[in-house]
Amino acid sequence: MAVGPGKLPEFYPVRGCRLGIASAGIKKPGRKDLVVLELSEGSQVAGIFTRNRFCAAPVILTRQHMAQAASRYLLINTGNANAGTGEKGLNDARACCEALAREAGVDAARVLPFSTGVIGEPLPVDKIVKGIPEALRNLSENHWAEAASGIMTTDTRPKGATRRLELNGKTVTISGISKGAGMIRPNMATMLGFIATDADVEPELLDSLASELGEKSFNRITIDGDTSTNDACMLIATGTSEAETITRNSSSLAAFRAALEEVFLELAHAIVRDGEGATKFVTIDVSQAASQQEALDVAYTVAHSPLVKTALFASDPNWGRILAAVGRSGIDDLDVNRLAIWLGDVCLVRDGGRAGDYSEERGQAVMDQEEITIRIELGRGPVNETVWTCDFSHDYVTINAEYRT
Amino acid sequence: MAVGPGKLPEFYPVRGCRLGIASAGIKKPGRKDLVVLELSEGSQVAGIFTRNRFCAAPVILTRQHMAQAASRYLLINTGNANAGTGEKGLNDARACCEALAREAGVDAARVLPFSTGVIGEPLPVDKIVKGIPEALRNLSENHWAEAASGIMTTDTRPKGATRRLELNGKTVTISGISKGAGMIRPNMATMLGFIATDADVEPELLDSLASELGEKSFNRITIDGDTSTNDACMLIATGTSEAETITRNSSSLAAFRAALEEVFLELAHAIVRDGEGATKFVTIDVSQAASQQEALDVAYTVAHSPLVKTALFASDPNWGRILAAVGRSGIDDLDVNRLAIWLGDVCLVRDGGRAGDYSEERGQAVMDQEEITIRIELGRGPVNETVWTCDFSHDYVTINAEYRT
Repeated sequence: MAVGPGKLPEFYPVRGCRLGIASAGIKKPGRKDLVVLELSEGSQVAGIFTRNRFCAAPVILTRQHMAQAASRYLLINTGNANAGTGEKGLNDARACCEALAREAGVDAARVLPFSTGVIGEPLPVDKIVKGIPEALRNLSENHWAEAASGIMTTDTRPKGATRRLELNGKTVTISGISKGAGMIRPNMATMLGFIATDADVEPELLDSLASELGEKSFNRITIDGDTSTNDACMLIATGTSEAETITRNSSSLAAFRAALEEVFLELAHAIVRDGEGATKFVTIDVSQAASQQEALDVAYTVAHSPLVKTALFASDPNWGRILAAVGRSGIDDLDVNRLAIWLGDVCLVRDGGRAGDYSEERGQAVMDQEEITIRIELGRGPVNETVWTCDFSHDYVTINAEYRT
Repeated sequence: MAVGPGKLPEFYPVRGCRLGIASAGIKKPGRKDLVVLELSEGSQVAGIFTRNRFCAAPVILTRQHMAQAASRYLLINTGNANAGTGEKGLNDARACCEALAREAGVDAARVLPFSTGVIGEPLPVDKIVKGIPEALRNLSENHWAEAASGIMTTDTRPKGATRRLELNGKTVTISGISKGAGMIRPNMATMLGFIATDADVEPELLDSLASELGEKSFNRITIDGDTSTNDACMLIATGTSEAETITRNSSSLAAFRAALEEVFLELAHAIVRDGEGATKFVTIDVSQAASQQEALDVAYTVAHSPLVKTALFASDPNWGRILAAVGRSGIDDLDVNRLAIWLGDVCLVRDGGRAGDYSEERGQAVMDQEEITIRIELGRGPVNETVWTCDFSHDYVTINAEYRT
């Protein structure tokens, strides 16, 4: 089950970024489960990572390697998260990086490892090491679609976005793939995003674009509130385009930033649309908040309410559940009489109760749609925040309650 | 579906507390949906209420009346929560209190209203007013069981607890009933608890016992994290027993407090055992926390994790999900190497990873039980907290996703 059309775009290749795919037999024989990204010398890499305190070995090592050297390779495996594996997990991740480094003739610190899949099982290092040469053999700038499939775990479809734009007469390309956030036992499947551009971007600017856009996209989506131990979103700039270097003062920054934001949002939304058992794509807009924190508290309280999510699954305009979720979201001095709640263009709640002009029929008409916006006006200040989520279906329980086999 | 035996006890009557039941036809004809508690003159009443900012009209009015006068009557209706009803809801609740007050010949401020059921629908005042005389006619100290059924909404069974103890040679009785926390559309069903004792308790002491024991019981249970707009737990002391007045310095306080705590816990746990779709009764013990806040944050993050709850439903010892929930529970300086997680008597996590002596078989043996304890040792300080919850089943989704009929 997934919401909306899920077709991959025709990816524009990004010069300086080649992708290789292999079947290492981690999950099942023949399944593509290993992906290598090779970045041309001089590429810049920025990243944002999970905030879970149980941060997986590959995340720890990727941070270390990024601090030590300029990255040349990203090594991604599915089927095993190498999380909750303690010291051994770090050594296993290191061993995989070293194997790729040997094959490619670079320092191991120039390889960044990413893993997604089962938690707490030892990483099958031998299988991964055996698979690396195959992945390196088929490196190509035209393998974005294959890579999008190669990083999938429980995703029902690959996810990608691509853009091409002109900056002062020169062409710049942005392509990206993402996966997650399906979470089936015993996996805590992971949210991964890899976005590459051939633009030449000033390193500090690239870092702040990754954090800022990642915050507004990958950090604003939620399926069930559970946070993986392995989440990572990487932003790569190969600098191979002929467009001039983009700095904070470049006239071209605005256009580049806008296109990059589109790619981040498209990849993040694709994860929600493919959320486990999802039948609805839900946008939760909180406005007129006194602070960003309270805007996010309200948005996530509504987004995570099992009662709201099951009502969405049932296409039930159950405004009482939204109202109650807002009421318990932690704003002590919330004035319920200044608050308004909208379902699409239908006002549900006003003056502390059901809106006078609300009718079941009008609410139902919005709820019957596959894409729904819940708007909450707090009447407290100037801050607004948006998060995206999906509904809570029987399939979610089925997927997550499956017995081990 | 419900966990454990759900038989009502043989209630000990509490002298000075009579209960009357009526069918007002609020939900369906013939269904007992109206309950009146009559308290003898001189009774003391304490209460704790929902923290939801959308606090229902009856909760607002009960607080007002308790501040104005000594309570003589509690008026409880099911089928309609009189919540999200604005000013009209307050007038409707007031009208019901006045009707009962006229019949009983007392001031309306001596009547406390409680409602549970549909949110946002006008309270059927006429039906309630018509039902009051019937409820008053059958007032009896022996109607605890009937009242336990009369306050049910989506509960699959009535809930009660009763104790009798000797304090310095004199008999003291405690009896109580509770309902909730089923929540079916369009209800936000409510958690209600009514506990009466014939002990004579100093008013300030009664207040602090209600808050303290309510905090450790009704405020430590969660089905799905959603908080009703109508929750209330009332503690009544009629003072009709011959035992001497209980004060902070009474030698009898410890024994009385212990018995009262048993009743609070039994009533609170009964709500979890009857949680919507519940197949497991889960105790979450967090110990070695640096503060009460972080202990509760960890406990509730685990208790509310849909991944943990669906794993419990599947009897799946999926320790990775518990570990990940602890990791995201908001303790920034959590040292995962000092943390330990136990499932019953089986250690799941130690030294930042799966415990060396853990085996799937041992974990499965605990998970197969109907009552499960998850113990989390944070290794940070002296504080411990306990919360109780249930699992997340297909029935939960079915119940909460039912279409309106």
